[in-house]
Amino acid sequence: MSSEYSPTRPVHLSDVRHWDAEHDVVIVGFGAAGACAAIEAATAGADTLIVERASSHGGTSALSGGEIYLGGSGGTPAQRQAGFHDDTEDLYRYLMLAGGPDADDAKVRLYAEQSLAHHDWLVAQGVTYKNTFLPERMVEPETDDCLIWSGSEEAWPFSDAAKPCPRGHTPQMQGWGGGRVLMDVLAARVAALGVPVRYDTRVLALIVDDAGAVCGAVLRAYGATVFVRARRAVILCAGGFVMNRDMVRRHAPTLLRSADPIGSPGDDGSGIRLGIGVGGAAIHMNEGFVSLPFYAPESLIRGIFVNGRGQRFVNEDCYHGRTGHHALQQPGDRIFLLADQAVFREPPAFARIGIAAAGESWEEVERDLQMPAGTLTATVDTYNRHAAAGVDPLFHKAAKWLKPLDEPPFVALDCRIDYAFYPHFTLGGLDTLPTGQVVDDTRTPVRGLYAAGRTTCGLPRWGAGYSSGLSLADATFFGRQAGRHAASGGREALREAA
Amino acid sequence: MSSEYSPTRPVHLSDVRHWDAEHDVVIVGFGAAGACAAIEAATAGADTLIVERASSHGGTSALSGGEIYLGGSGGTPAQRQAGFHDDTEDLYRYLMLAGGPDADDAKVRLYAEQSLAHHDWLVAQGVTYKNTFLPERMVEPETDDCLIWSGSEEAWPFSDAAKPCPRGHTPQMQGWGGGRVLMDVLAARVAALGVPVRYDTRVLALIVDDAGAVCGAVLRAYGATVFVRARRAVILCAGGFVMNRDMVRRHAPTLLRSADPIGSPGDDGSGIRLGIGVGGAAIHMNEGFVSLPFYAPESLIRGIFVNGRGQRFVNEDCYHGRTGHHALQQPGDRIFLLADQAVFREPPAFARIGIAAAGESWEEVERDLQMPAGTLTATVDTYNRHAAAGVDPLFHKAAKWLKPLDEPPFVALDCRIDYAFYPHFTLGGLDTLPTGQVVDDTRTPVRGLYAAGRTTCGLPRWGAGYSSGLSLADATFFGRQAGRHAASGGREALREAA
Repeated sequence: MSSEYSPTRPVHLSDVRHWDAEHDVVIVGFGAAGACAAIEAATAGADTLIVERASSHGGTSALSGGEIYLGGSGGTPAQRQAGFHDDTEDLYRYLMLAGGPDADDAKVRLYAEQSLAHHDWLVAQGVTYKNTFLPERMVEPETDDCLIWSGSEEAWPFSDAAKPCPRGHTPQMQGWGGGRVLMDVLAARVAALGVPVRYDTRVLALIVDDAGAVCGAVLRAYGATVFVRARRAVILCAGGFVMNRDMVRRHAPTLLRSADPIGSPGDDGSGIRLGIGVGGAAIHMNEGFVSLPFYAPESLIRGIFVNGRGQRFVNEDCYHGRTGHHALQQPGDRIFLLADQAVFREPPAFARIGIAAAGESWEEVERDLQMPAGTLTATVDTYNRHAAAGVDPLFHKAAKWLKPLDEPPFVALDCRIDYAFYPHFTLGGLDTLPTGQVVDDTRTPVRGLYAAGRTTCGLPRWGAGYSSGLSLADATFFGRQAGRHAASGGREALREAA
Repeated sequence: MSSEYSPTRPVHLSDVRHWDAEHDVVIVGFGAAGACAAIEAATAGADTLIVERASSHGGTSALSGGEIYLGGSGGTPAQRQAGFHDDTEDLYRYLMLAGGPDADDAKVRLYAEQSLAHHDWLVAQGVTYKNTFLPERMVEPETDDCLIWSGSEEAWPFSDAAKPCPRGHTPQMQGWGGGRVLMDVLAARVAALGVPVRYDTRVLALIVDDAGAVCGAVLRAYGATVFVRARRAVILCAGGFVMNRDMVRRHAPTLLRSADPIGSPGDDGSGIRLGIGVGGAAIHMNEGFVSLPFYAPESLIRGIFVNGRGQRFVNEDCYHGRTGHHALQQPGDRIFLLADQAVFREPPAFARIGIAAAGESWEEVERDLQMPAGTLTATVDTYNRHAAAGVDPLFHKAAKWLKPLDEPPFVALDCRIDYAFYPHFTLGGLDTLPTGQVVDDTRTPVRGLYAAGRTTCGLPRWGAGYSSGLSLADATFFGRQAGRHAASGGREALREAA
């Protein structure tokens, strides 16, 4: 019965014999984007439904660290308490650089200006921040602290583009996994607003009218096919496509070099495909987040990365998701992190980083790695000579991380692409306006359709510029915009365009 | 009047009040793909129309060198005459590697097996090959000779994957620009077959029926809007999207690093957009061909390329389109080609390669380039030491091109990304079956729609693997498949699928 449907082939209204249910706004996916869209839509008075394919709320957001990239307008309470003043223009410039060669200026501008207000909104929903700052470099706090350096703010070239400020805000909880806390808070708000949720329910297809406007969805749950009318809009918040390996192969095959997609099973691209099927444009489909979480301990940032030819390729003090991105662009699978006795610490176990070679001299390490004489050693010599002078003219690693690697024994940590942990997810998706409206490739809105989160190509859209907290910032903030505008039936969007 | 139409928004059959013309097959674009599609469709008895936006035939094919990548089945006459035996499996393996991580096995297999027959078909149409071989490395022959090394066949890793054989076949003519000769021959055949052509005519939109099948097109010519029915199929042969810089920005922004798109004004993406609008899947939209045509003279292949950090990044004996691709992936705009007195020759003027620095020692050159001491010199030292022994352990340049760069004076040729000539065009496009049928993202054919040439993602689909002649091979061969299958109204395609 359901096999006749495909996400990319919308059903025509004339083929709908009856509506099983009607709502103003139908939201597909109950992760952070869907939850925030629902809260805003319901608050605006819209009769709202959430459709979720899993048996509970959360999606990929709940699997994350829960960090949200926040700042600007002088700073959040956590930033101010730690002594940082975060200017809106610095946040704007950072996000523009992080967005890469096609950063979305309109979204970045809006987010930079309203990020602090967004922080306050999150707190009003019940998200608790301890507002404490941990200055050490880490993936996420293991304590219940709040603020961390979660991007490349202090690293070149970002540090040249914008005054550095930490902006990763983690909900208060002990241990990793703040995303679950965040989602539970948002889901409680959704419940308090009385928004119904259909769990274990997939969207088979969107329904379009004669004019091509989206006016409903065909659902599948418990063996039944259900036709739901959306009087005002459908909002796609269904995640990315990293779990659809065939789709990854056709759009972002470089990511297949890593065997570690991260996300929930729902990240199968169905949200993006639903949007494409009704005329939505998918952009930057080749881009992805790729990490190599080699710190904490931050001491290893004082080491240097080299590829299989013994060449450096990145300033090691940038965000681990920028390091991972550049590692994945290197030819061959061999990637090494070089350390001496002084900077060596055991990398995190989950990073699957072993020891490839060790020795009393870099010549010995070079030989053990079967690199031609004069390759790795020349790289280390040049690095050491400049590090001793406190500079890194080739890669611009900041002075605080520079130290000659001259205290034996020396070690080459094994960060092979085909063995170490390179978690990745997709960044390409539907093009949307800051209102959340899905647009076609002339940037004309597809009537009745909104999207948010990784179903869209949002603030994060360039692997080399990713920062932790950007996806949740994008999902929660633009999920809200979508919910609010969809609830108004597009009237607010029309006013703003006028 | 025409502003109501958009390539991505198909017109519904019910909105067509009358047909201004009817044909079995309507072909969009009169480059090589369109011409070959028309020849096959007309030969099969289909009433065929070509629609061309320019005032004459040719498209981007006519601007090219006219090289076609041909071989296999033991070899073409030119290959055999030059003493080469080209095994089908070697052609297959080469094309699979050239196609990158998502090479289209079905297309590669079909092409490898039928490439020799395709050669004979081209000759039967009137294309003349002198069947002589020029062993020197060049972009295209300046004489009326035929066969050249037009890819990376002799270069690592291709030389490991398949027995090297030259496969670039250029039509007989003096000077560059064999594409015009090729197109004139094909256009003469089209005319001889009595295929009508509407010049100066754009396709505004495709027309679809209730079932979503393509059944016609809305045209615009000389101020009039014309509705043309396609009884069997529309074939999109409308080129790529490199001239649509906005589209390049959204899908392949790395290409914007070069200011030299190559193609005709028709490469504006409209063919791809027409396909997307009716459900066709566009894949690998970020990929592009990027060249740095630094040879002939081939002597410079004995030099070495370095980036702004003094690091090598490619084996210099590979095809110039692989070198250019890797140059574009380097950080920063500075790219240098290092040569000594023995290997230096004047690069081609159109390559806009000047001299950045020269000196009696590499230390002097390094200093002049303002590179830190020990960077460029270490690279040259390692290269020279191994070149003297006839090996290149880091990049695997073939022994015949290895020579220590130790004869002063030395020179660093300036190949800046933002100044030198890096011609580029797009490789992403509509996904098609070997029959030419456009497919959606489940690989289900869009009924009534075919495509060929750079409107599709074909044999060439990976910048790092491009070889000269691949686009025309793909366009002519799969243009023919599309024409033949479209003429049969899909019956042949159905038989083959059964």
